[in-house]
Amino acid sequence: MKVLVIGGDGYCGWATALYLSEKGHEVGIVDNYIRRHWDLKLGIHTLTPIRQLEERIGIWQAVSGKMIANYVGDITDYGFLAPTLRAFEPQVIVHFGEQRSAPYSMIDREHAVLTQVNNVVGTLNILYAMKEDFPDCHLVKLGTMGEYGTPNIDIEEGYITIEHNGRKDTLPYPKQPGSMYHLSKVHDSHNIHFACRIWGLRATDLNQGVVYGVLTDETGTDERLINRLDYDGIFGTALNRFCVQAAVGHPITVYGKGGQTRAFLDIRDTVRCVELAIDTPANAGEFRVLNQFTEMFSVGDLALKVQEAGSAMGLKVDIHYLDNPRIEAESHYFNAKNTKLLDLGLEPHYLSNSLLDSLLNYALKYRDQADQAQIMPKVSWKR
Amino acid sequence: MKVLVIGGDGYCGWATALYLSEKGHEVGIVDNYIRRHWDLKLGIHTLTPIRQLEERIGIWQAVSGKMIANYVGDITDYGFLAPTLRAFEPQVIVHFGEQRSAPYSMIDREHAVLTQVNNVVGTLNILYAMKEDFPDCHLVKLGTMGEYGTPNIDIEEGYITIEHNGRKDTLPYPKQPGSMYHLSKVHDSHNIHFACRIWGLRATDLNQGVVYGVLTDETGTDERLINRLDYDGIFGTALNRFCVQAAVGHPITVYGKGGQTRAFLDIRDTVRCVELAIDTPANAGEFRVLNQFTEMFSVGDLALKVQEAGSAMGLKVDIHYLDNPRIEAESHYFNAKNTKLLDLGLEPHYLSNSLLDSLLNYALKYRDQADQAQIMPKVSWKR
Repeated sequence: MKVLVIGGDGYCGWATALYLSEKGHEVGIVDNYIRRHWDLKLGIHTLTPIRQLEERIGIWQAVSGKMIANYVGDITDYGFLAPTLRAFEPQVIVHFGEQRSAPYSMIDREHAVLTQVNNVVGTLNILYAMKEDFPDCHLVKLGTMGEYGTPNIDIEEGYITIEHNGRKDTLPYPKQPGSMYHLSKVHDSHNIHFACRIWGLRATDLNQGVVYGVLTDETGTDERLINRLDYDGIFGTALNRFCVQAAVGHPITVYGKGGQTRAFLDIRDTVRCVELAIDTPANAGEFRVLNQFTEMFSVGDLALKVQEAGSAMGLKVDIHYLDNPRIEAESHYFNAKNTKLLDLGLEPHYLSNSLLDSLLNYALKYRDQADQAQIMPKVSWKR
Repeated sequence: MKVLVIGGDGYCGWATALYLSEKGHEVGIVDNYIRRHWDLKLGIHTLTPIRQLEERIGIWQAVSGKMIANYVGDITDYGFLAPTLRAFEPQVIVHFGEQRSAPYSMIDREHAVLTQVNNVVGTLNILYAMKEDFPDCHLVKLGTMGEYGTPNIDIEEGYITIEHNGRKDTLPYPKQPGSMYHLSKVHDSHNIHFACRIWGLRATDLNQGVVYGVLTDETGTDERLINRLDYDGIFGTALNRFCVQAAVGHPITVYGKGGQTRAFLDIRDTVRCVELAIDTPANAGEFRVLNQFTEMFSVGDLALKVQEAGSAMGLKVDIHYLDNPRIEAESHYFNAKNTKLLDLGLEPHYLSNSLLDSLLNYALKYRDQADQAQIMPKVSWKR
């Protein structure tokens, strides 16, 4: 299949592009390198040194014999996007190309507006380009489990059947997102659902949990193909950040009481889930929603696991419970369903001591790259 | 109260600004006149000749003795909005300042993007300006009943209590909007809800039905204060458009079978509902949702009512059932709740023969202004 990976220079996008290339798909990447620019402007950087995309693609070709087409540009610019699609002629579009950090979106008004406009307009442009030129193309869009918030009932996959006053309907699952970023994903979901209903497009919304891990089979074949590993207060997500903190001797930063339960998955499962979605596409007119995670943990439990694994390796790991910079429930019901991807064939990599060892070892290997000043959260949700 | 009416040059905004001014509120208007510019670009115009805002405000002052402050600018420009709010110091912001036509939003990609960016960014800017400078200000935001779509269960007011797998929660009512415009209102609702939850702002979302009528007590005091009356295929809504069609001898244009049921209200109730929301504000941190309509009709029934009223006045009124330019269910369950505004004290003006007579007479009075080429729908929802 001809698969266009939008945002293919990013953490999930790069791993996915190589994985799909290895599996024999004809892969193209679209990226505008804006994430690298944001890193520069924020004065932060990935722990692992990542090479420029064009160079990485060349190394991948040398290592694997497989070509990846590279299109540099901004999907919010329709004058770039439409001809790019006509040049590549995708059968599948995998769309990672969004601003994906909740704290980034909460820095201030400008970053909130940037996040929502960037994400909503980029996705609208893809939908219109598909409508015009590629109505049979399958859109595989990265959403987030954070769209659901923490309702006091079970979280279903995208829809819920409601009985009310003697009648019944299956409706979009109500959303209570927790940041300007998460809101942008909810907006996208509504827009894509509409495009499927009205224009007969086919789309899969992957409501992904928090991704951890750095190594996939493909990015591990050559050190120069290494993926990014974010540990800073803006882009570093829970488990990856905790492992880097343990490796560099910084206390693990748990926000609040740590009772916040979230859905998680290994990056090796991210790439497999995208493949599963591609292999069994949504039907024409269908807006399919899959919850993409393998396990649920409280943030506090994750910190304890990292502490334990670190101690076993001889690291001294403290846990600091910070005043929570976010406004969120710190003890709540959380039970989300994730059977649809399992039914499609996902065999999860569960979080294990060996995974934690590997991640900690990676972090130790690059610990000299760490800038401790980047670690603490600097963005507050409070008024 | 100091009430800032954003979009105060428009159909609902102008009527509301004068009504609140008459009731003794200190009213300011913000408008960028973009709707007048869109009319020019689309080659359409209101049936009733409306004067420039500055002139209308001067006439209102001469007639009523009451001043209205006028701020000309674009709320998507924070550099305009923030100092404007600091100059006026609103206790209430009534926000009508959005692109409000479904067909306009469906013209093409550019108009879809314009609608969503304009509406979402304008509302985000208001939320941030309130957070920064006016956290106690009450936002009264115009939403739409079209956010709900046509679910097969009763439509509640903003929230629904769901029992699921033995647990229960009250969650935002699921949304299935039917155009890029309606989607923008759903995005707004999620953003405002978040701002209330996180920053403790207070907001009322008025999910308004289709408004009809042209006369209010205040706009009727002087012919030069007359409100706009849209009858074109882009901005003309069902009942107003039907009356103009009957008056100018054009067949009434029902889209599809006419079985689409929608919620309606008289513009005299629009202004009263806004007053009721202002008089009993939402609490700090509360995102209150009120369904703002008084009756439900099928579009086909409305056409028959106009035909009957027109015939009684000696008009020959045909009804044409057009191939529906929209993609929507033409026969469906529709039962929406509207008790909250009634509980606050709304005494509805129900649709009556006398209202239809008055509206038809208005249309007859200005029938020479009509451009029949504007009447037919030109925008299609189809791919």
